[in-house]
Amino acid sequence: MNFRATVLTLYPEMFPGPLGVSLAGRALSEGKWSLETVQIRDFATDRHRTVDDTPAGGGAGMVMRADVLARAIDHASPADDVRPRLLMSPRGLPLTQRRVRQLAGGQGVIIVCGRFEGVDQRVIEARGLEEVSVGDYILSGGEPAALVLLDAVVRLLPGVMGNEMSGEEESFEKGLLEHPHYTRPPEWEGRPIPEVLLSGNHAKIAAWRRGEAERLTAARRPDLLEDRDQPFEK
Amino acid sequence: MNFRATVLTLYPEMFPGPLGVSLAGRALSEGKWSLETVQIRDFATDRHRTVDDTPAGGGAGMVMRADVLARAIDHASPADDVRPRLLMSPRGLPLTQRRVRQLAGGQGVIIVCGRFEGVDQRVIEARGLEEVSVGDYILSGGEPAALVLLDAVVRLLPGVMGNEMSGEEESFEKGLLEHPHYTRPPEWEGRPIPEVLLSGNHAKIAAWRRGEAERLTAARRPDLLEDRDQPFEK
Repeated sequence: MNFRATVLTLYPEMFPGPLGVSLAGRALSEGKWSLETVQIRDFATDRHRTVDDTPAGGGAGMVMRADVLARAIDHASPADDVRPRLLMSPRGLPLTQRRVRQLAGGQGVIIVCGRFEGVDQRVIEARGLEEVSVGDYILSGGEPAALVLLDAVVRLLPGVMGNEMSGEEESFEKGLLEHPHYTRPPEWEGRPIPEVLLSGNHAKIAAWRRGEAERLTAARRPDLLEDRDQPFEK
Repeated sequence: MNFRATVLTLYPEMFPGPLGVSLAGRALSEGKWSLETVQIRDFATDRHRTVDDTPAGGGAGMVMRADVLARAIDHASPADDVRPRLLMSPRGLPLTQRRVRQLAGGQGVIIVCGRFEGVDQRVIEARGLEEVSVGDYILSGGEPAALVLLDAVVRLLPGVMGNEMSGEEESFEKGLLEHPHYTRPPEWEGRPIPEVLLSGNHAKIAAWRRGEAERLTAARRPDLLEDRDQPFEK
């Protein structure tokens, strides 16, 4: 059984979008993963197909109703569905490459895309939704975040990515940012490729790359270096 | 002059994608922002339209050539272009809501989407590309990251978002995750809305929400609380 993604959204027309092109798109058409969308609005019961209402206690924005969303989830993901149920939300735990790899090793995902101010807390608890954040910024809804998450996961599925890209992966897993890259021409606009890279000395090249990666990480992401001192892989 | 986005990519067909729908799509068709794509491959000069080559010093993957990408950038963004030039890359500084707001206050952005192992470091330096990361995970290319960045920026452009959503924004800017939301029905699957939210006592409601936001942030994102002690807004 291949990896099955089910996305609950008010905008099914956003999918597959960029996931229908290039690496993910080829894998989709080859059946290495599947993508199904569920229109949340189909589970509204009133004449106006209402999915949201004003927040209890007052305040700006609208909140997605627990009852409507729960019906959509129950339709898409029966009780014996082993796939994790994710809710894309800036309140969630930040997505990491480690979590991406875990997801890619599973049978698929259910992804709920919120819109409006948020989702009624009771459906998050009652249906065991795992809130996942792709970063510390606010999107118009969960859909662009879902596209990012699926892109990251799909490239790790068996047979999707050629071996030629696996180096990138390893590098990130060391907890360092990547060293700079260079390719032909050897000189461009008066800028040469660093001599060591043309030396043919593999040990020196590896040491230089390691040093550059550490320097860059210290400059831009000292938080990653702190995490490396922890006993667990980030 | 409205906000102008120019995206340099090998997959122009990924755009506008989700940005052609809903909030961003409506704003696009109303001319509140514009989106242009530039096919990097059009700036290759050889018969095979090559844009990448093997990494100097060896290793896995392919590196995007400095000369080809520089020609595409020079075409899309002349020297007097005031728009920042971003390169979507996991090596970049993490995107924050603060940076999103800065970008939304400007005249637009140039966004370079990398593919392969990376981009020749010399073009990053020579063309002043600002590396931006949307999160600590690896994507198949910069395109899904560009879609996320543009979605976050476009919703902040003048006239795009109704006032009804501005509360969400403020809340994130306090450096706390959002408190839980509830809406009708008052009881669902035996779960009631917390009594305080139905009390009509605005001071008590505000205090409850603040407490919940702090509790949630401490549990999920203690790093945000540390940052709040700094003299500068995150």
